[in-house]
Amino acid sequence: MKATVLHSPGDVRLDEVPDPRILDDTDAVVRVVAACVCGSDLWPYRGINPVTEPVRIGHEFVGVVEEIGSAVRSLRAGDFVIAPFMFSDNTCPHCQVGIQSACPSGGFWGREDRQGKTVDGAQGEYVRVPLADGTLVTVRDHDEAMIPSLLALSDVMGTGWHAAVAANVREGDTVVVVGDGAVGLSGVLSAAQMGAARIIVMSRHESRQKLATEFGATDIVAARGDEGEAQVMEMTHGVGADAVLECVGTGESMGTALTVARPGATVGYVGAPHGVELPVAAMFGRNVGLAGGVAPARQYLPNLRDAVLSGQINPGRVFDLQLPLDEVAEAYRAMDERRAIKSMLWVGRS
Amino acid sequence: MKATVLHSPGDVRLDEVPDPRILDDTDAVVRVVAACVCGSDLWPYRGINPVTEPVRIGHEFVGVVEEIGSAVRSLRAGDFVIAPFMFSDNTCPHCQVGIQSACPSGGFWGREDRQGKTVDGAQGEYVRVPLADGTLVTVRDHDEAMIPSLLALSDVMGTGWHAAVAANVREGDTVVVVGDGAVGLSGVLSAAQMGAARIIVMSRHESRQKLATEFGATDIVAARGDEGEAQVMEMTHGVGADAVLECVGTGESMGTALTVARPGATVGYVGAPHGVELPVAAMFGRNVGLAGGVAPARQYLPNLRDAVLSGQINPGRVFDLQLPLDEVAEAYRAMDERRAIKSMLWVGRS
Repeated sequence: MKATVLHSPGDVRLDEVPDPRILDDTDAVVRVVAACVCGSDLWPYRGINPVTEPVRIGHEFVGVVEEIGSAVRSLRAGDFVIAPFMFSDNTCPHCQVGIQSACPSGGFWGREDRQGKTVDGAQGEYVRVPLADGTLVTVRDHDEAMIPSLLALSDVMGTGWHAAVAANVREGDTVVVVGDGAVGLSGVLSAAQMGAARIIVMSRHESRQKLATEFGATDIVAARGDEGEAQVMEMTHGVGADAVLECVGTGESMGTALTVARPGATVGYVGAPHGVELPVAAMFGRNVGLAGGVAPARQYLPNLRDAVLSGQINPGRVFDLQLPLDEVAEAYRAMDERRAIKSMLWVGRS
Repeated sequence: MKATVLHSPGDVRLDEVPDPRILDDTDAVVRVVAACVCGSDLWPYRGINPVTEPVRIGHEFVGVVEEIGSAVRSLRAGDFVIAPFMFSDNTCPHCQVGIQSACPSGGFWGREDRQGKTVDGAQGEYVRVPLADGTLVTVRDHDEAMIPSLLALSDVMGTGWHAAVAANVREGDTVVVVGDGAVGLSGVLSAAQMGAARIIVMSRHESRQKLATEFGATDIVAARGDEGEAQVMEMTHGVGADAVLECVGTGESMGTALTVARPGATVGYVGAPHGVELPVAAMFGRNVGLAGGVAPARQYLPNLRDAVLSGQINPGRVFDLQLPLDEVAEAYRAMDERRAIKSMLWVGRS
């Protein structure tokens, strides 16, 4: 089959790789219908995370179940499914409380599973899915137009939702969203769904400001750092925000998030920290909490799927570039050069 | 009047100081009935926080209103009152959401107020109370035997309660309390009040273990560091605790708290951080949150007062040494030498 391989920073190719097959009786093989490129895929693409050998890549996909192992109970061939960005058994104590991203039997697409067996990356024609019952969420009665929004639930929408849950967004809140990438935009949509009265998004890019507004942002702050923080404090009459979503992961963005949070508020963070040092004395003095982490996208999938199917949310609008799998290199380039918020790859028929 | 002055590390004396009087129309003057020594008073007493000149000390007291300013509405002379460990207006936006410890008009006993006027320390015969309407909480119909428990609400019980609130303790939870000082013990009592099913306290001192058990602890772990963490993980079948109260404030105690928290749990911290560096990557990877800070004791005072008056809680049991104000030096020595969990000072008649 064809699948995406990152050979070295900047060098992403569609290669011929072995077809996956059932290796464990809890596996499924899924034929991919659509996949996409994540902001986190850009870390190795840009060489910020080292790439020492060619690696399979991609961790977001929807598709059709092709084959199941003999122990799989909840799926059958032909089911249309969404995969969260990690696989998990959904039965262990961590999964049971909804933190599937901490499942000790789970893991990431494109790496090895806990038995050392290859798990395919998502940006390819087929994927072997370990722990298929626990991992995959079925979708019934969708139409083709919903596929981008269903695909967005794999990662960015679930991650933005997690930021809003972690920040404890409540009805009537003033919320600040730091970051206007696909996750930040999903955070805006999430905060709006949770009833935030005011959503201030920190965004410098016009196309993203526009989508943020359509997703429910009420105010835009284009400035960053001290100036951006001062603007938010002024907009909140010196009080700060009731809840803050940190959707970037840099030291600067975290500093801003902690500064604009009012005393007693929580910063919900989902941007993988790169160069973040937490100012514990200031956090303590101001009673500003921090919660979040690797999003348990699996937890939120059933409800968010239903919200997509009912037309309540349309998170697939973050995909402002749609290409066939053959053009995966361009999909990366467009995101790397900020020509696209998020690139979607059409792989097969649904 | 007589009041406690810390002259230099280890040198605490009862000195003659000016009698306080009403300086602002929102002030009250309170005649102190009982005060106490806080673990945080030991930081300057031990020279860990520098002492460059003699300072008034003490921030926990109950007493009787002697005089009120012309703008004070909710109090009158003769009222028995509890003071939280900070004063606050209780009307600003931070106070209104219950974070009175962030009140921009507020401050600490024994320092200057926002206008630069002296505020008395609590370990003395009288205290000028700024913002008296916002700060003081009245008590009706108490008997003498309740005074230690009412005094405990000034700081340690409110602080332990804040740790449990911040850690989001819920009915049925397994809770770990790191620290067996008066705050940690109050944290145990708070978690028990909130319905925790299992309360594991990390404690090495027999007298504290005993009181912890009486307050509701179900398990004791005497070991610290790696060994203590391993014991907690074994006791929780490798899962970790649903909520963790960090009541010490050192790097080691925070490390333990974060390690024994299960994924998705929150560490509620109230020990002022000394040498704490937060491991953000590990916190992110495990979805372990951190919340808390300088406790808004004022927020919790009315409810905790009622719980004391009804006999539901008896947090005054943390006072295992009661002395007259004259013996304040011994009160400090006994805590410094760990002969007492917490020293109470009887100052005047109630």
